[in-house]
Amino acid sequence: MEFSCSRGELLEAVNAVSRAVSSRATIPILSGIYMEALDDVLRLVATDMELGIEYTIPVKTVQTGSTVVNARIFNEMARRLPEGPITFYISGETPALKVRYHGSELTLNTMNPQEFPLLPAILDGDHLILTQGQFKEMTRLVCFAASTDESRPWFTGVLWDISPEEVRWVATDTHRLALLSGQATESVIQQNRQVILHAKTLSDVARLLSDDEASLQITITRSQALLETDRMRVILRIIEGQYPKYQQVIPRDYKTRMTVSVKALADSVDRASLAAIGKEGSNIIKLSSDKNTLTIRANSPEVGHIYEEVFVDVNGDPIPIAFNYRYLQDALKVITTDDVYMDLTATLAPGVLRPVGEERYLYLIVPVRTV
Amino acid sequence: MEFSCSRGELLEAVNAVSRAVSSRATIPILSGIYMEALDDVLRLVATDMELGIEYTIPVKTVQTGSTVVNARIFNEMARRLPEGPITFYISGETPALKVRYHGSELTLNTMNPQEFPLLPAILDGDHLILTQGQFKEMTRLVCFAASTDESRPWFTGVLWDISPEEVRWVATDTHRLALLSGQATESVIQQNRQVILHAKTLSDVARLLSDDEASLQITITRSQALLETDRMRVILRIIEGQYPKYQQVIPRDYKTRMTVSVKALADSVDRASLAAIGKEGSNIIKLSSDKNTLTIRANSPEVGHIYEEVFVDVNGDPIPIAFNYRYLQDALKVITTDDVYMDLTATLAPGVLRPVGEERYLYLIVPVRTV
Repeated sequence: MEFSCSRGELLEAVNAVSRAVSSRATIPILSGIYMEALDDVLRLVATDMELGIEYTIPVKTVQTGSTVVNARIFNEMARRLPEGPITFYISGETPALKVRYHGSELTLNTMNPQEFPLLPAILDGDHLILTQGQFKEMTRLVCFAASTDESRPWFTGVLWDISPEEVRWVATDTHRLALLSGQATESVIQQNRQVILHAKTLSDVARLLSDDEASLQITITRSQALLETDRMRVILRIIEGQYPKYQQVIPRDYKTRMTVSVKALADSVDRASLAAIGKEGSNIIKLSSDKNTLTIRANSPEVGHIYEEVFVDVNGDPIPIAFNYRYLQDALKVITTDDVYMDLTATLAPGVLRPVGEERYLYLIVPVRTV
Repeated sequence: MEFSCSRGELLEAVNAVSRAVSSRATIPILSGIYMEALDDVLRLVATDMELGIEYTIPVKTVQTGSTVVNARIFNEMARRLPEGPITFYISGETPALKVRYHGSELTLNTMNPQEFPLLPAILDGDHLILTQGQFKEMTRLVCFAASTDESRPWFTGVLWDISPEEVRWVATDTHRLALLSGQATESVIQQNRQVILHAKTLSDVARLLSDDEASLQITITRSQALLETDRMRVILRIIEGQYPKYQQVIPRDYKTRMTVSVKALADSVDRASLAAIGKEGSNIIKLSSDKNTLTIRANSPEVGHIYEEVFVDVNGDPIPIAFNYRYLQDALKVITTDDVYMDLTATLAPGVLRPVGEERYLYLIVPVRTV
């Protein structure tokens, strides 16, 4: 194997595949990055067996071949390389990877590329095309609502509820639920289906995508999802299990709708949280309203208490309600519209936030019972 | 107590004094910030008994008085307050601090201000005036070389070696030593003296100063140092103990002087460190030179090995030497001149870095014996 490439492209590829390297790989070969010089491209692959990423960059190949190097070391190296062309070649009996730039030479230990579990070719399955921007929006608005408790794996995932007409992304940790609807650019599916993909992994993948209209090809088999861009293939394992019937918890209607500025509400909730923190604060803030004012109160024997007023437009009878302030904060951080509806049905029924003018998204919060 | 002030100035004062609040205060009152409204200023004080900071801001006082509030809560609050004037007043039987802004009101629990250990008035002692810029430069170039091992407290400190002619700041962890000399703007001292101040604390204080010529008044008593600016008083405890005779370890002369670009050397050392990390790498890089080339080698059974070349100008016979790369990296990060001298005497004698064109600073590294 011998090839040369630019530092910039190498770094991009190494950064991308490094997200799939487990920090505590139990099988030594999985701590490595597989690299294969083909006729005029270099293919890098890493996988922790849950997530696999393959990235291809143009190189000048002198001799094709493959090797595996320690991912952490290779990543640190790529960051420190000087600008300008870099030459890589294999040499020696116990093959080492030589890296040459200017008058310097780095010799890296290698592992046997035959042992590396390459990503499967995935051809059959349901097909979708999304824009990369859509995928990023989905992770931004939905992933944070998933649970991190691995004992109920499906709640750590995002549900992709796919029909020929639309895709719905749903995440919940049972205390709150986020739902975003979207239309695929193209959709070839056998029948409506639901798959669950790990929320944390989706967020990691989103960081490798662009914000724009560039397309993302998606192939879904029984156990895996393949995401493809020009340069990258990502394979994710589908989380097994039956996702709860999320439609049943979303209120069909509301009794009271409040319209409120996202920024004003966010600032007030942030301040109110001051008196909701602490051993006895339990993270609870209490909301009540009259015609034009939403008052937020929080109380903690440790800190003191707080009373906040926010201007709102109330349509319907006042319904006092109490929330864990963190669930409100999380949503108010990602909603980008100026105003949001807060739809309430009863003191003990879930409240729903809907960005004003953005029908595709909703965020539901289960209230806290207070005495 | 009743006063109003702007959010910006309050935040500045709270940020400043918060550096003196211990994160694990054993005496409850020390988790608080003391605040006292005088005729037209508010004085904030915090101390962990090692370090005390007092900060004064202009306010509109309606009624003088004092209280103590939890520092963490007050800090969080100040960050979240909206722009515009804020009114504070004490109310209630078990006095609470009320904070009013717009239509909102925060009520904070308070502690008894009588219990707060106020900072002593310090009048007598040696006097120095430095610029705040000098103080910041001293902490930047010297503090990092101090030890963090509390078992030998003097090595966690910076020595201020003060004579009427100059001040020398010295820090060492016995593996390397940094020394910066400076002249005070004004200096009234009884006799030459040496005091040791905690390096970490000096760095914390430096962050509260400006980079410019604004003056910093220093008063040094037997056990404490007082630093004063327009708005701030800082009291630090002097570390007891005899500082080692640092002059004896600084070579008076050198046999070989290499002149090298700081950036080129830093980049090469960073890359070479790749093969010096790891269980068996021991952080060692080996330097050798011929007339115009400094070669750096590092070797680790785990990673591989590296060979780097840096252009240098060598004056004297080549002296091969080995260093812990971290000690070189630390100094190359803070030296701001283009070039640096590396002065060597023998393979097992300390090497000295001196920024070219900057006589006031030197940095010494004890070499590593290699087989």
